[in-house]
Formats: sequence, C-alpha cells, structure tokens
Amino acid sequence: MTFLNCDMGESYGLYRMGDDEALMPLISAANVACGFHASDFNHIPKTVRLAKKHGVKVGAHPSLPDLQGFGRREMTMPRDELANCLIYQIGALKGFLDAEGMPLNHIKPHGALYGMAARMEDVAHAVCDAADIYDLPIMGMIETCHEKVYTARGHVFIAEYYADLYYNGQGKLLITREHDPVDPQDAAERAVRAVREGVTKSVDGNDIPVRADAICVHSDTPNAVEVARAVRDAVAPYLEAA
Amino acid sequence: MTFLNCDMGESYGLYRMGDDEALMPLISAANVACGFHASDFNHIPKTVRLAKKHGVKVGAHPSLPDLQGFGRREMTMPRDELANCLIYQIGALKGFLDAEGMPLNHIKPHGALYGMAARMEDVAHAVCDAADIYDLPIMGMIETCHEKVYTARGHVFIAEYYADLYYNGQGKLLITREHDPVDPQDAAERAVRAVREGVTKSVDGNDIPVRADAICVHSDTPNAVEVARAVRDAVAPYLEAA
Amino acid sequence: MTFLNCDMGESYGLYRMGDDEALMPLISAANVACGFHASDFNHIPKTVRLAKKHGVKVGAHPSLPDLQGFGRREMTMPRDELANCLIYQIGALKGFLDAEGMPLNHIKPHGALYGMAARMEDVAHAVCDAADIYDLPIMGMIETCHEKVYTARGHVFIAEYYADLYYNGQGKLLITREHDPVDPQDAAERAVRAVREGVTKSVDGNDIPVRADAICVHSDTPNAVEVARAVRDAVAPYLEAA
Amino acid sequence: MTFLNCDMGESYGLYRMGDDEALMPLISAANVACGFHASDFNHIPKTVRLAKKHGVKVGAHPSLPDLQGFGRREMTMPRDELANCLIYQIGALKGFLDAEGMPLNHIKPHGALYGMAARMEDVAHAVCDAADIYDLPIMGMIETCHEKVYTARGHVFIAEYYADLYYNGQGKLLITREHDPVDPQDAAERAVRAVREGVTKSVDGNDIPVRADAICVHSDTPNAVEVARAVRDAVAPYLEAA
Repeated sequence: MTFLNCDMGESYGLYRMGDDEALMPLISAANVACGFHASDFNHIPKTVRLAKKHGVKVGAHPSLPDLQGFGRREMTMPRDELANCLIYQIGALKGFLDAEGMPLNHIKPHGALYGMAARMEDVAHAVCDAADIYDLPIMGMIETCHEKVYTARGHVFIAEYYADLYYNGQGKLLITREHDPVDPQDAAERAVRAVREGVTKSVDGNDIPVRADAICVHSDTPNAVEVARAVRDAVAPYLEAA
Repeated sequence: MTFLNCDMGESYGLYRMGDDEALMPLISAANVACGFHASDFNHIPKTVRLAKKHGVKVGAHPSLPDLQGFGRREMTMPRDELANCLIYQIGALKGFLDAEGMPLNHIKPHGALYGMAARMEDVAHAVCDAADIYDLPIMGMIETCHEKVYTARGHVFIAEYYADLYYNGQGKLLITREHDPVDPQDAAERAVRAVREGVTKSVDGNDIPVRADAICVHSDTPNAVEVARAVRDAVAPYLEAA
Repeated sequence: MTFLNCDMGESYGLYRMGDDEALMPLISAANVACGFHASDFNHIPKTVRLAKKHGVKVGAHPSLPDLQGFGRREMTMPRDELANCLIYQIGALKGFLDAEGMPLNHIKPHGALYGMAARMEDVAHAVCDAADIYDLPIMGMIETCHEKVYTARGHVFIAEYYADLYYNGQGKLLITREHDPVDPQDAAERAVRAVREGVTKSVDGNDIPVRADAICVHSDTPNAVEVARAVRDAVAPYLEAA
Repeated sequence: MTFLNCDMGESYGLYRMGDDEALMPLISAANVACGFHASDFNHIPKTVRLAKKHGVKVGAHPSLPDLQGFGRREMTMPRDELANCLIYQIGALKGFLDAEGMPLNHIKPHGALYGMAARMEDVAHAVCDAADIYDLPIMGMIETCHEKVYTARGHVFIAEYYADLYYNGQGKLLITREHDPVDPQDAAERAVRAVREGVTKSVDGNDIPVRADAICVHSDTPNAVEVARAVRDAVAPYLEAA
C-alpha cells in the first residue's frame, strides 16, 4: 500500500509557485511549507484550507532559514538550534491547523535539510527532537540516517519514493535547485515498480532498492500535475484509503 | 488586585536586549516576543524556560513583521493578513510552550500594532480573530478600541497600566522608539496611585483615569530592573497570588 | 517626445515575475528592483546585463523594506531613515552597473513609496536626499509632491504616464496590489492621447491632464508584453531616439 | 610597519554591538558591516561619518546573508552567487561613502566567509571577482587561500594578525560565535612579537609564523576598547602614519 504526497504551499507574497489547486485533489498528504524556504503567514492558511477542502492530511515541511535559496543551500547549525528552527516552523503551521480544527499529521524536512538529515546523524536527531513534541511520524529515505535515527528514536518512519527525481547508483537522490520536467508515463511506470517490486532503475542503469510507503511529487516540478495524475492512475490498485 | 508583567525575550541572534534573568523573578506574567520585532527560534525557548523556572505565565507578544524597526513603525495591512501574521507568531511560540508542557496564557500586541489596535477597530478585530483560536485573554488599555472591541467580542480584557511610560492629557501613551530611563521611586508611587485610585497624572498635569489589572514594565527600558523592583515592592499589598 | 520604461527585474530567488526577456527589447529605460520589494543579488546583475544587451538605460527602483508585501504596504519612516533606505539600494544596484561599466540613469521610487512621495513632501524630500548623491533625474507624476519637490530641489523631473493603470477623476492612480490585465489596443490609444493631447480619460469619465515624458508599463501586469508592444507601435512617431 | 583595523559598525536596528565611538579614534582602518551579518541602512552612514570624523579609512566587511547567525554559520553558495552577494554589499556601502565623498579602501570578508575563503579556492576567487570592480586591496591571512589566490589574481594582499583571537598549532584561527574577553597586556605583547618577529605562540605552545601588515581587533570582543588601546600603545613605534 502507498499514498501520494506533495511538497506544496510554496508561494510567497505576490510570487506564485506550483499549481496547488490542481494538485491537491490528486494526493492524500500535503507537506506544507512553513515560511522559512517558501510560503508566509498568508499562504499557509490558504494551503491548509485547500487541504481541508479535499480531505488531504497536512504535514509540516520545515526548512533551513533561507528564503532566497529556497532552502536548497546547506547551512551549518548545531543540533539544538536546528531543532529550535524546526519547532518554530511546526508551531507556526500548527497555529493555522488549530484554527481549522485539523491535526498535524507528520513532519518532513525540506530541501538541503532533508539531504543533511540523510547523511548526518546529528541533523536527523534534531528532526526527532522537534518531532518528539507532538510525537509526529517522519518522512524520509530508507538506508540513510533518516531510517536509522528516526526508527531508533521510536518514531513512525514513512519511507518515501520520489516520482519526479532520479537516483544515482548508490541510491542517493540527484537534486537540483530547480526541478526539470519529467516524462509522466515513465514516472508512472517507475512508481509502479517501486511500489510492487521495491526497486527503481538508477541513472547508472542498475536496480537499487527503494520503499514507497509514500510517493512524492514536487509542486515546483514544471509538469507536476501531469506527473501526479499519471502516477496516481498507475498506482491506483495500491493506494491506501484516505 | 494587580500583577506585574513585562515585555521580554527581545534578544536576537548575538544581540542582547534587556536583563531577563533579573526581571523574571520579579513578575507574574511575561509577554514573550515571537520573532517578528525581536527574538528568534533560539531566544524563544530560552525565555520560555526562564519563565517556567520562575513560575511566570507566558503570553504571546506578536508584532508587525519589522525586525529592523523593532515593530515600532506603523504598516498598512488588511485585517485578515494581520490576523494571519499574529496566528503565525502565536503558533510558533506555542510550539515551544508545548515542548515545555506550559499553557499559553494571553496575548498582547507589540509596539506600533498595540497603538494601531487602540485607535483602529479593524486592527483590534484582527487581534481578536487570532486570539479566538485559543480563546486567549487580551491585554490593552481602557477607553480605547482595545477595551471596546475585545470585550464586545467576548474576550477577557486585562487592563494595563504602564509604569515606565508617560500619558498625555487625553490618556494616550507617549511612546518613543527607544525607551528612556525613569525614576524608580516616582514610578512606584505612580503605580500605587494607579492601583489604589485608578488615576495617574498626565504630562499635562491633570489626573486621567487608568486601570491596572496588570502593571507593565518594558525590558528595554534602561533601568528596567530597578523600576520593576521598586514598583513591585510598592504595590506588594495589592499583588495577586501567582 | 516620449519613451517607454518598465518596472522590472522583479524575480526573487527561485520565484519568477514578469517576462523581462520579452519586454527589454521594447523599452528605452528599465526601472530595476534593488532587493527590498523584489529581486536579489543574483537577479540584479541578470537584469543589468539584459538591459546592456539591448541598449536600455538603467534606473534604480528602490522600495520600502517589504519583500513579503512587494513594497505595496505603506510604512511610517522618518525622512532621514527613508533616504538611508534608498541610498543603500541605489548603491547596491550601482555596484552591478559599475561591474558592467554602465551609468545609473535615474531613480524612481517603487510602489507604496511612490504613492507616499506623491502625497507627502517629507517623503519626496527623502527621495531627493538620496538622488542628490549622483544628481539623478527622478520619475514621477505631475501635480503631486513629485513634481513640486523634485523640481524645487533642482532635479530633472521626468513626468510619467501609466499605460496599464487607470486614473480617478482627481488624477490619482488606482493601484491594486496585484495588477490586472488591460486591453492592449485601448492602452495604446490612451497612450497616444496622453502623448499628443496631454490628457487621459479617468474612470469617472472626465478628461484629466497627464504628461508623458515617459510611458510606464509594469512587468507584473499579466499581459505586459502585449501592452508594451501595442503602446510602442502606437506612439512610434513620438519616440525619442535611444 | 603595521596599522590597527577593527571590524565594526555591527549594530542593527535598536540593537547595539561594540563601542564604536571609543574604538574609532584608536584605529587607522574600519572594516564596516554592510547589512548582511550586522548593520543596516541607518547604522552604515553613522559608522561612515564616525570614520570620516576620525580620519579612519573605510573598507567593506561583507558577509554571507545571515543576520541571525551574525554571518558565523557556513553556507553553501556557488562562486558566482557569492560574488554577487559581495558586490551587492560593497555597492551599498559605497553609496554611503559617495554621499560623504570618501573612497572605498579595501575589502575583508566577514566571519564564516572569511574562514571559507581561507580554505576554499573557489570562495577566495569569488572575493576577488567582487574586489575586481573597484580594484580593491583584500585583507586576509598568510599561508591560506587568501594569500595564494588574492596575490595570484594581482590584488594587493594585506596580511592580518588577530590581536584578540588565538591560533592553533597549524596557524588556524580559533573562532567562536561569541568572542571572549582577552587580557589586554598579553594581547599587546603578542602583537609586538607578531610585528617584530613575525611569530605568535599557538595554543599548542609552539611558535607559528604570522604577518601583521594590519592588526585586527573585533568590536564585539567584550573588552575591545582596552585591548585596542593596549595594542596600539605597544606597537606605536611600528605604526604607519595615517
């Protein structure tokens, strides 16, 4: 079983990012930007209400404090400050969820922080330190510090498969600051393999293990809606009931 | 009966503001900066833990988004955006309170926002819109839109008297961007009058009505600790049990 | 004689605003955002180089410090701080012009600051205080504090006519935070009248005086390229040689 | 021959950092914060005018974009973006120097950026890319990428010795986010050795080579004024005429 989630709510001020209106009906969980890499106090409630309207669960998608870099630049921060950084953002989002009577479902660190938490135990611990407050499940990738630390700390670990990114031969994500469009049909076929067989073909040509408790599509991928729709249709037999 | 409260937790990054360590033992309630005019995700938890240590209640002290201006520059924002601005900050603070198992006690808008809410009904309504989520008591001044709107909306209204500021002949606070030191003994005597008689002498020489459900001292007043200590000693017979 | 200018270079980080590539070839002068309402240290040099490539003159388009509000929220700042705010932005832009060996051509305050300078002498003086350093011409509207103060201070005053906005019966611009698309043909015809006859029809139906030393199109108007092209073609006989 | 320089102008908004009034008369060159790790458009002109009053040369002290971290957190940025980041800040400072008719004397990267430029050639090249525009001398440390890259690129390289920091056995600076007070007499004696003998004793006990074209004191060292005065008196025979 799997479900679709999407990194979204990434507009800021007058700037628009992603077609959240079209994406929200296609997914089960939204990872909502909290104002540090994207979004602000006006876009968060819009995103939360849009999720509510479509019965979509809301998770926090906190970031390093880096609006200009969209949270995709690594920064050095000690564990306690990183945890504080996440608690601030989670709390801010939770305020808007409380206003709508919605629960906070999970947490997923964004961008450079996600990559750092995969590689560095200290960063993964900071994520747990913040998640502890509300005992939140945490999304991440298998065979990284995500899985290792989050499970060791007793958190529910939701293994993610990325439908719109590629993996290298060692199972690492190939992340660029701006996402390129991907072929929806190819993305759909790879997603089905990830769900059914637990493998995906890396850019090196070999099959690498993945686990797809959740399938992620980025809202800032240029053709995100087409990708999400194709993936969703293809994995329909394996989707969890909302 | 009255109690002492203090605007505090106003350091930012490496910058220090106010002697919170010395002030916290003297007060019953702290109005804690939420990161928009002062403080950040590292200073908020420090302030919250300091309050916990001294059994001091914590209220949110949210601001217009204006770190450089310390929230003391007026900005034009529509009611819904202002409410969003406050909910974001209240939520962020509440995250750290949740981490410490402490309740959020009240809300008090900061600086220019406080003054705007006193004059403009729309702004006072925005404060209520945010306070509604957690049904928070709101601090403010009598005979302003604070009292009028907050009470009409059914919120508990905590009338504040300012021990370290002066009032003009119409009962309006004389606020400067940077606070000047005040004479502690004079502040203490005026505070006692405010509590016992419900009046204070304005800078015009006439007595004006005030109500001191709470007595406020600013942590950024240069001799805030001396003022707080003198006021506290003087009003001791009228202090609420914590 | 007139020329076309455009408020541009308003992208930020990964966020895109306006089709500068398509607009730049159509105009003679670009009012370039300086990082306070839009743009950042990466987008400014891109915009400057694009202007250089098309032989377009570059002016500074500084703003109140308000990225989230796109500089379209009024803020209270004293004259000296406002002048400082502008000098900082003008200097930052000039650094990139120096890098390209290009001169700084003029200054035009952005958004809420533009409107405030039209109404308030003090704000118009702050603009002059900043413009004085490089003896810059200043763009603005006739019969406002723009014209009155800038000319009294001895600055070259470039009267602007807005091709994509409407005027009320008193000659004031009707500005919204987000710009709506306008009919290119209608905009073109009105622009010709503004240039030839010095009048435009207000939304109240009466003709009001305007002066079009320069014709402005906003890059964030949804169909800005079509509007600019139609206006440019229509006013071709009156265009200054670059 | 040597001269004293100081990292200063590091206040922000209502926050104060360092006793610039007392330090400025003691030094020959001020490295002035440009608004990215400290200072803002109001403090920069104050600092520039204070330097002018005391005949002190002004250099740019640009930083990574990190006000909360005081520029002391490392961030990953590509060379071209880093150069842009520096050009923006240098230009902003230069605007205020132009207003006072003062030249820009040199550039010295701040904090984490200084350390990164010492270790990484790419970062040192970014500093040169920015310094190229005004052909600025660059301050740095010998036997690091500072010296290697700046001199290879043809820039005047000003070797700095730090009077208020310690060096490890490999000649690297021991930098903490907040600076501790140091013994003024000891600092003075070590400074004389650095100037006369070109060595300093590391915390490991061995003598390591240093070069003191310039001696730096940080304005945020708690007893900076005492340290600067003691050092200045001790090295008086070796001071360049202003």
